[in-house]
Formats: sequence, C-alpha cells, structure tokens
Amino acid sequence: MSKKIIIVGGVAGGMSAATRLRRLMEDAQIIIFEKGPFVSFANCGLPYYLSGEISDRQSLLVQTPTSLQARFGLDVRPFHEVLAIHPESKTVTVKNDTQTFTESYDALILSPGAKPVVPPIPGLAAATNVYTLRNVPDVDQIMTALETTNPQQATIIGAGFIGLEMAENLRKKGLAVTIVEQAPQVLPALDEEMAAFVKQELQKNDVQVLTNNSVVGFKNAGQEIELADGTILQSDLTILAVGVKPDSTLAKNAGLELGRKGGILVDQHYQTSIPDIYAVGDAIVVKQQITNTDTLISLASPANRQGRQVADVIAGLPRKNRGSIGTAIVRVFDTVAASTGLSERSAQQAGLNVQVVHTTGKNHAGYYPGATDLTLKLIFDPQTGEIFGAQGVGADGVDKRIDVLATAIKGGLTIFDLPELELTYAPPFGVAKDPVNMIGYAAMNLAEGLSDNIQWYQLDDALEQGKILLDVRNPNELANSGQIKQAHNIPLDTLRCRLPELDPKQSYIVSCHSGLRSYIAERILKQAGFKVENLDGAFVLYQTIKPEEIEYV
Amino acid sequence: MSKKIIIVGGVAGGMSAATRLRRLMEDAQIIIFEKGPFVSFANCGLPYYLSGEISDRQSLLVQTPTSLQARFGLDVRPFHEVLAIHPESKTVTVKNDTQTFTESYDALILSPGAKPVVPPIPGLAAATNVYTLRNVPDVDQIMTALETTNPQQATIIGAGFIGLEMAENLRKKGLAVTIVEQAPQVLPALDEEMAAFVKQELQKNDVQVLTNNSVVGFKNAGQEIELADGTILQSDLTILAVGVKPDSTLAKNAGLELGRKGGILVDQHYQTSIPDIYAVGDAIVVKQQITNTDTLISLASPANRQGRQVADVIAGLPRKNRGSIGTAIVRVFDTVAASTGLSERSAQQAGLNVQVVHTTGKNHAGYYPGATDLTLKLIFDPQTGEIFGAQGVGADGVDKRIDVLATAIKGGLTIFDLPELELTYAPPFGVAKDPVNMIGYAAMNLAEGLSDNIQWYQLDDALEQGKILLDVRNPNELANSGQIKQAHNIPLDTLRCRLPELDPKQSYIVSCHSGLRSYIAERILKQAGFKVENLDGAFVLYQTIKPEEIEYV
Ligand SMILES: Cc1cc2nc3c(=O)[nH]c(=O)nc-3n(C[C@H](O)[C@H](O)[C@H](O)COP(=O)(O)OP(=O)(O)OC[C@H]3O[C@@H](n4cnc5c(N)ncnc54)[C@H](O)[C@@H]3O)c2cc1C
Ligand SMILES: Cc1cc2nc3c(=O)[nH]c(=O)nc-3n(C[C@H](O)[C@H](O)[C@H](O)COP(=O)(O)OP(=O)(O)OC[C@H]3O[C@@H](n4cnc5c(N)ncnc54)[C@H](O)[C@@H]3O)c2cc1C
Ligand SMILES: CC(C)(COP(=O)(O)OP(=O)(O)OC[C@H]1O[C@@H](n2cnc3c(N)ncnc32)[C@H](O)[C@@H]1OP(=O)(O)O)[C@@H](O)C(=O)NCCC(=O)NCCS
Ligand SMILES: CC(C)(COP(=O)(O)OP(=O)(O)OC[C@H]1O[C@@H](n2cnc3c(N)ncnc32)[C@H](O)[C@@H]1OP(=O)(O)O)[C@@H](O)C(=O)NCCC(=O)NCCS
Repeated sequence: MSKKIIIVGGVAGGMSAATRLRRLMEDAQIIIFEKGPFVSFANCGLPYYLSGEISDRQSLLVQTPTSLQARFGLDVRPFHEVLAIHPESKTVTVKNDTQTFTESYDALILSPGAKPVVPPIPGLAAATNVYTLRNVPDVDQIMTALETTNPQQATIIGAGFIGLEMAENLRKKGLAVTIVEQAPQVLPALDEEMAAFVKQELQKNDVQVLTNNSVVGFKNAGQEIELADGTILQSDLTILAVGVKPDSTLAKNAGLELGRKGGILVDQHYQTSIPDIYAVGDAIVVKQQITNTDTLISLASPANRQGRQVADVIAGLPRKNRGSIGTAIVRVFDTVAASTGLSERSAQQAGLNVQVVHTTGKNHAGYYPGATDLTLKLIFDPQTGEIFGAQGVGADGVDKRIDVLATAIKGGLTIFDLPELELTYAPPFGVAKDPVNMIGYAAMNLAEGLSDNIQWYQLDDALEQGKILLDVRNPNELANSGQIKQAHNIPLDTLRCRLPELDPKQSYIVSCHSGLRSYIAERILKQAGFKVENLDGAFVLYQTIKPEEIEYV
Repeated sequence: MSKKIIIVGGVAGGMSAATRLRRLMEDAQIIIFEKGPFVSFANCGLPYYLSGEISDRQSLLVQTPTSLQARFGLDVRPFHEVLAIHPESKTVTVKNDTQTFTESYDALILSPGAKPVVPPIPGLAAATNVYTLRNVPDVDQIMTALETTNPQQATIIGAGFIGLEMAENLRKKGLAVTIVEQAPQVLPALDEEMAAFVKQELQKNDVQVLTNNSVVGFKNAGQEIELADGTILQSDLTILAVGVKPDSTLAKNAGLELGRKGGILVDQHYQTSIPDIYAVGDAIVVKQQITNTDTLISLASPANRQGRQVADVIAGLPRKNRGSIGTAIVRVFDTVAASTGLSERSAQQAGLNVQVVHTTGKNHAGYYPGATDLTLKLIFDPQTGEIFGAQGVGADGVDKRIDVLATAIKGGLTIFDLPELELTYAPPFGVAKDPVNMIGYAAMNLAEGLSDNIQWYQLDDALEQGKILLDVRNPNELANSGQIKQAHNIPLDTLRCRLPELDPKQSYIVSCHSGLRSYIAERILKQAGFKVENLDGAFVLYQTIKPEEIEYV
C-alpha cells in the first residue's frame, strides 16, 4: 500500500522534501499544507523587490501549486493551516477558508520555519506603520504603504542580515533610513571590527546607524519612536527585524520536545520525539558542528538540504544530519560581508584556544584593472591549527573566499593546509598567492612563533603599559590617511639603518597599512633581538573600528 | 657565519624564495641572478598589456632591484645569466654585459622557469613576424610590431591558456585573428565538450578556430603559413604558443637528474640530485597528487608556494612539497573556463574507475537580475565517491565553484560531502542549492543507482543499438532552440499521463535542456519499470559539442 505523507509548510524545507519524496516514491500520496497564499516562494528575494531591483513579483514565486501538481503530482494546498497534530491517531486538524477537517498520515514532516520576533514594546499594538518581513503578503503590505503613504523617513529596528537588506533597499527607493540596534555593532553574527566596515558603508550611503541603543516605545500611532537614550525618532515606515524564532507552537501543542529558544528537537534522522513525525528547516535545533552544541540556524541552504535528507530518510535511504557550521553573506550597498563557522566572540565563549589574524589584500591581481580591497579574518587554534571560523568584507570576491574557507572547515583542513590550496589564478580572477593562501601563511607564522600579534582592542592597554607603537608606512601615507595617535614613524625601507634609534629594552608594536609591511618590520626587529608584536589588521582595521583614535597631521 | 645563497631566476619562484629567506635569515647573503632585464614581473599580465586592458607597463613590474634591496636587502642582478654550476666547488659561472665571473654558494636555488616550445617548422628561421611570449622584452617586441607594421591579420598557433589570452587581446586590439590547433579541441587541459563552449565563444567574437590542423611551414618571411590540410593562411603577426618546457639546460649541464620532458627531479624538500642545490617552479617535476605520478605544472601559484617552501627548508623549518592537483582558469571574452584535478580523459588514461556528470544552473538566484548560466562537470569514482577533477564554463562564478571543488579535492572530500557544503547564499551571490551542492546531488544519484547517465559521445551508438531518445522539453523550446535529430518529444509535465504510449520492452534515453527535467523524467520512468538513461548535460551540452546534429523544426 502506498504511503501517505503530510508536509506542514510549503517553502524551502517543506517543498524540497516533497519534490525529493516524489522522485523516490512515485506512488506515495503527498499533501503539502501551507497556511499562507503561496508556496515555494523566494523569501530571500523579498527585500530586493521593495527597491525594484527585482521588478517582477511573479519571479519570486519559484513554483505554484499547479506547476507542482503537473510536474510532481503533489497535492499542494495553500490557505490551509494545520491547527493540531494528534500523534495517537496519526492525524492532523486542518483549517482553510471554509472548513476545518482531519487528515491522516503515515509520516508527517514539519517545516514551519521561523517567525519574526516581536518584542512587547509599549505602543506597538497601536502603531499602524510597523512591519515585519517574512513572506509575500508582508512585502505586499510594505509595498502598499510605500505607494499609498509616500513615506519619507524609514526606521529599521535591528541590524541583522534582513534589517540591513531592508535598509539598503529602502534607501535605494529614496527614503531616509535610520537603523536602531541594541548591540554595540551592526551584524551581530560578525565580530565588531569586521562589522565596522559595514557600518562605515551604511554611513557612506547616508544611512544613520544608532548602535548601543534600543526602542522603548512607539507613540502617535508609530510616527514617533522613543529610544532608550531618550531620543525621539520620527518614522513614517518602520521595519521590525530583531531576529527570528522557531515557529513551533503547533509542535509544542502536539507535545513534541522542544529545545533552545523553542526549536524542535530532532535526532540525526530528523525524527522528533514522537514516532513518524519529522521536522526540518528553521524550526529545528541543529548541532553546531565545530562545538557540537545545540544551535538554531535560519538559512535557506540548510533548510533545502534538510528537506531533501528527510525525504531520503523516509524513503529508507541512509542519510543523517551531520550538523551545520553556518555560512552567511549580505550585500550592503557596495560592500559585501560574509562569515562562516564561529566568530572570535563565540569561539571565546565556547572556551576554545583562540587566536585570530586579519589580512587585507586585493580580490584579483593588483596590476589588473578594477582590483578592490578584501579584508579577511581567520579564527583558529594556534596549537592544532584547527579553523574555527572566518569572516570577510570587501567589494568583490568575498563570497568566493568564505566559500573556500567554509569548505576547508567542512573538510577538516587546518591553517597549515590553506597555503596548499590550489585556487584558480589568472589576472581577472585572483592573486598568485590568493587571499586564502595568504591568511594561511599569516596564521602559520603565528602558530610557529615567527610572528606575534596584538588585537585592536588590546592596543590601548599595551601602550599604557609602555609599549611603543612604530608605524612603518611612508610619510606621504601618514599625511594622506592619518595615523594612530602616539605612533612613531620609521618607514620600513629605512628600518635596517635606523635600528640604532630603537631601545632594545623597550617592547615595540609595529603597524603599517594592512599588516604586511609591519610583519616584515617585525621579522627584522625580532631577528635583531627586539621584543615586538604586529598590530593585527593594522591601520585599515584600526581606523575603521576606532576612527576617533586617528589623528591627521 | 652567515650563509650565502644564490638564486637563479628572479621571478615567481625565485623571488618568493628570496623574500621569505630574508624574513627567516636576516644575516644571510642572498644574490639573485636574472638573465633578463626585469625581475618580479607579472608574466600573467603580459597578454592584457597588448590590448591596452592593462595600460601601464610599469604596473607589470611588481618589484624592482632597488625596491628589493631597500626592503629585503637582496642583491638582485638583472642581465646576469648563470652559465654553469660547479657542484664540486659549489660555485656558479655568471655572465653579464661586461664580464664572466665566478660566485660561490652555500645553497643554490634554481627557479629558471619554463620556456616556449619552438617546433622545428620549415621556414620558421626566416620568418620575421613570429613571436613567442614569456617576458617583458617579448611583449615589447610584439607591441613594437603592432605599432610599426600595423598588422591586420594575426595567427595564433596553439589554443592553450596563453594562446587564447593572446587571441582575445589581439582581437580586442582590432586584428582579425585565426587560431590553429593540432588537437581536435581548444584548451586541451579541459575535456572536449567543455572546451567546445570556449570555441563557440571565440567564434562568436569572430575568431576563426582551426582545430585538428597544424602548421607545416612558413613562407614569404612568415607572411604565409601552410597548414597540414593544405590551407595557406596570410598572417601579418604570428604568435607561437604551443606549450612550454622546463628551462633546464643549465641544470642538465651541471649533471642534475632530469625527469619527464626535461624537468628537474627534486625530492619532497626541493633538493635536486646534487646536495645543496634546490629547484622550484615551472622547471621541476612534481607529483600529481591524485595519481601520485610525475607531472609538470607551469602555474604561478605553485611556483610562488614552492619558492616560499624551499626558503623554509633551507632555514631549517619542517616543510615538504605535498604535490599539486593543478587548478587553472582562463577568461575568453565573456566566457570563463576553469579546471582542477584530472580531466575525464586523464582519469581514464590513469586507469581509474571514472564516472562523470554535468549540470547547468545559474551563477546566482535566478529571480535576481543578471543571473547567467554555469555548466559544471565532475569527474569521480562512483564506488568510493573520490573526486578526481572538475571543470566549469560560464560567464560568472566559475572561479568560485572550481575553487570550492579544488579545496574539496585537497581536503579529501567525496561526492557525498558536496551537498553538505555550506556556501554563502544571498540572492546576488549564489543559489540556495549552490551549483556545487547540486552537482554533488547529481553525482550521488549516479553512485547510489537512482540515476544512470550516458555521455554525448555514446549517444550515436546507443541510438544505433535501438535505444529511443525522448526529449521532455516543451514544444516551444524545441521550436526556439532546435532539437537533437531522432528525438521524440513528450513534455515532462505530461509524461505521467502519456506513459501508455511508451514500450516497456524498449530502452529509453531522456533529454531536456540541462538534464534536470530529464532526470525527473528518468525517475518517473524508472519507477514505472522502464529501462532508461539520462543524456548527461542534455541539449545545452550536446548542441555545443555537436551543433551539426541539431535540427531546427
Ligand atoms: C526577508 C528574508 C530574507 C532572507 N534572506 C536569506 C538569505 O539571503 N539567505 C539565506 O540563506 N536565508 C535567507 N532567509 C532565510 C530563509 O528564507 C529561511 O531559512 C528558509 O526559508 C527556511 O525554510 P523553512 O522551510 O524552514 O521555512 P519557511 O521557508 O519559512 O517556510 C515555512 C512555511 O510554513 C508555513 N507554516 C508554518 N506553520 C504552519 C502551519 N501550522 N500550517 C501550515 N503552514 C504553516 C509558513 O506559512 C511558511 O510559509 C531569508 C528570510 C527572509 C524572511
Ligand atoms: C604570458 C604568460 C601568461 C601566464 N598566465 C598565467 C596565469 O594566468 N596563471 C598562472 O597561474 N600562470 C600563468 N603563467 C605562468 C606563470 O607565469 C609561471 O608559472 C611562473 O612565472 C613560473 O615561475 P618560475 O619562477 O618557475 O619561472 P619564471 O617566472 O618564468 O622565472 C624564471 C626566470 O629565470 C630566468 N632564468 C632562466 N635561466 C636563467 C639563467 N641560467 N640565469 C639567470 N636567469 C635565468 C628567466 O629569465 C626567468 O625570468 C603565465 C606565463 C606566461 C608566460
Ligand atoms: C524549488 C523547490 C520546489 C525544490 O525543487 P527540487 O526539484 O527539489 O529542486 P531543483 O529544481 O533544484 O532540482 C534538483 C534536482 O535535480 C537534480 N539535477 C539538477 N541538475 C541535474 C542534472 N543536470 N542532471 C541530473 N540531475 C540534475 C538534482 O540532483 C536534484 O535531484 P535530487 O534531489 O533527486 O537529487 C524548493 O527548493 C523550493 O520551494 N524553493 C523555493 C523556496 C526557497 O528555497 N526559499 C529559500 C531560498 S530564497
Ligand atoms: C612579490 C614577490 C617578490 C614575493 O614577495 P613576498 O614578500 O614574499 O610576498 P607578499 O608581498 O605577497 O607578502 C607575503 C608575506 O606577507 C605576510 N603577510 C601578508 N599580509 C599579512 C598581514 N596582514 N599580517 C601579517 N603578515 C602578512 C605573509 O605571511 C607573507 O609572509 P611569509 O611568506 O613570511 O609568511 C614574488 O612573488 C614575485 O616576484 N612576484 C611577481 C612575479 C610573479 O609572481 N609572477 C607570476 C604571477 S603574475
């Protein structure tokens, strides 16, 4: 007898499960219940539709019930909300426009996703211009507001991935945009100094960024927003994007075990705590592969993969969830920021033996037109060489380097393997020593004791302890770009002759533009017997994260 | 006492060794002899200088003797050719403009590179317009010819990476360009069907491509070129780019052991057969990591790495050459072609258990503007899942996918790991199931017996054996793009209803545009009990490699 499989949620995880199931089980009965009007839509494209960058609304609908019926024989039912699961009878209660009914299942797959967090801020209920963004109806609402109320001033609450995409797209639409973020930085998934590049780009594009601040109340039907520091913002249109949480009420009511932040607990085969009920996607708790701890990851790629895998499991193929490392990317105007694995912060919190290094180089050969800067950060164990995570910012080529590093992490490669990677090189595409090779070299030098570095947040203390900061750039660079307060200048190419000016009893910190020349200076000084550390990331990084510490001569 | 190190050849391998040596051995005496006028120049940028895409000749000179002296205290001597090595006395004989002298060494590093192969073609000696391209003087000569003789018609002999770059750049300069290639395809490093995309792009840009043909003579001072098939080409400017070979005469005369094609034999520590003489770069024989056989790889990235590693070895750091897989890329007008590891052909020749699969998808989300096609090929062992190699062609994003696959190969990942890769995804950068994940799925389906494919070169035989070709595209696609001769058409979305039209005793081959829909058809048919194979790469691939087999209805 053919199996009857019910799927709750018809987008990334749910529909990927459905299509794969059909390819494996031609005679199964597969019903997909979706409470919203659309299935298989491109959530990730929604922000770009607002600015008109994606102009065709239809293109956001990857598949329709009709096309899925024709191609996959799927019984796709939008406007059908599953209200309850009855594990004893293996049935679900479903409600549509006209009725509530019961449907039985042999296997049930939940892919209900995650929903925007809506904090209980006073005045929110009465606000008429505050929106969250999860699906097509949401974007339609915002679009209508844009068209009918002609808003001038938008406020984005939350500077995560979705918040920043919304900021960019509303700005491109011509609105004045202010971002309010509780954390001391934008993009909390990244470390502070890497996120600072993004903050700079937002400001360059006239987006006002208020970090370390939060919304404490809405007034005047939402037209006024009160912040923790007392500021009142005028806002015609407000987007609430302070994070998402598992949409797991249905699961909870059915008695399924939940974990972290209400995420559905599943085993390696996506099986929940109740037999024949499976769950995938944003709603489930997964293992962070590097720390082997529970985590939530709300990204399309894992949701798609898990959907396919649960289909395999149900069809009897040997498949298991190996966990996730979490790789994410965002474009903010002309800057791209991406990360994979653990941040420095999360690696520290996990109690790991953490060292970090930053490098800045070109996306492709410097002598080939159009080369742009790319800053990478590597988070690793200097003893074992294990790579915990990586982050990148730049105008171009960030996605490639983070993808390579994500693959290296998945493959268990260490920092000692990074220089060995043979990456495509021709002038339009890369550098003979690719940025990934280069950061491997720099990390190896730290691990092997050839170099010692000091982080931007350690500099103040170090200088207070009496260490001396030596800037080895050329005088014209200092004049054009400014310099870190208290720095002494000895250009690298004169350092060997000017060694007698230095005091062997002192400790030195060297800096340059990117950290490359100061590393060379460090090697000269170390071999001459000096105590010396390299300011990691050097001027590029320091001036981005601490612009107020730069003086212009 | 400080060590005295002599380096022969001052570009990628040699100068990388020199700079790293200085960082490790501040007090070593380091002399670099370079027979040409320049060191540290960007060989890889030379072709782009011809078209003016790289406009500043100076930018090709990454470092100069003066800058290298100032920064690294290197004794860099251009116009110095090392004529002989005397291992017994540990000296070299050196010749410059004015004298021949002897210099002693504690360690000697050879990085003499590879030189263009110049076949003994009749009339070549008398030809005045035939050039090879290896260094700045070569490019200057060609530039002078372009400026003074105003050539209209250029001929490129050899369709490897350098030949194609020259073809593009001369075409962009306004010349009519003809390529002559002995092999049946351009880019012999790629497999034939992948290279066919590049041939198509060349033709689209009015470059005449004559494959399966070769030059048998030059006449009229090179103005006429006679081909094997009797054709006479008129040529105002001819570039000979039929490959390179190790520049190892010096090594040979010194009694160093040579291997494959005259490459210098070295151990894992870059030590040649004679103590204290090391060699790196294009001139050495390396291990192809996948087959563990001897090979020659003339690429900048390995040369740079080896240069750094030999410095480490000499400085006493634990380093060894782990071999190379060979990753290469070329841009040909608006098409990019790249490869890593073994080709299908070379994997077959190595006697491996080879299966291949092709997929075509988008470089980034299809619903986001500007998405372009990307065709990938994976060469793997269907039993173990080992990845032998990968190739890619497309307008954008090819470098990224090949870099990820090169990293996967280096990390020993199998096809079963490819779907697990968590790659950056946001609409401007990728696809929720990235092309790399996707080709992993397709390969797994083959390995796990869910799908069987047949290659383009097997189709004729299969049809002759009586198998039936079923094209599952829509009628309008056939009308717009043509179809493979002999194909029957049943659109995928009607296949389930039309199954009764098919004969269970027949064997079927299914095809569509990219192979995705035909795979879905294959699954429907297989589960209905039919014998069926998927035409790998489908119409996209077939019409590119066999345009003459397409009929337009
Ligand atoms: C604006 C936006 C931008 C994004 N951008 C990116 C990006 O750039 N990159 C990236 O990787 N990820 C991005 N994401 C995240 C990505 O879309 C999700 O990770 C992915 O869609 C999760 O898939 P899922 O199947 O778990 O849930 P969803 O795709 O959210 O699907 C769940 C569906 O279940 C339905 N449902 C829930 N409960 C019920 C019920 N009881 N009965 C019936 N139906 C129910 C919901 O209506 C919903 O349609 C973005 C998300 C949003 C909202
Ligand atoms: C036109 C062109 C385009 C290229 N494009 C790419 C590309 O896009 N990507 C890529 O990866 N690779 C590319 N390459 C290959 C890359 O440049 C080489 O792999 C790399 O330069 C090899 O480094 P090497 O140190 O071994 O030799 P080289 O860089 O060739 O340096 C060897 C030097 O040794 C000198 N020398 C030789 N013998 C003596 C002697 N007896 N005494 C003194 N000096 C001597 C030579 O004059 C030469 O300058 C390209 C090469 C060329 C020519
Ligand atoms: C599109 C959607 C319905 C999934 O459909 P799908 O048919 O599983 O996926 P695709 O169209 O990508 O096709 C993939 C299949 O084709 C196969 N395939 C692709 N190219 C192939 C080729 N050239 N040869 C053979 N097989 C091929 C793959 O192996 C895979 O099959 P498998 O899963 O059985 O191995 C689902 O992902 C969805 O609803 N997406 C939209 C929502 C979403 O993802 N939102 C978040 C991101 S914005
Ligand atoms: C340029 C050339 C002289 C090499 O110089 P180099 O100083 O070794 O290389 P780079 O300038 O790239 O600097 C790399 C060094 O800086 C270090 N570094 C880079 N960024 C750093 C940072 N932010 N912090 C610390 N160290 C850093 C690297 O670790 C590496 O040092 P190491 O080798 O001691 O580990 C040589 O490659 C050359 O001549 N190239 C031109 C020719 C050529 O390559 N042609 C073929 C391609 S066109």
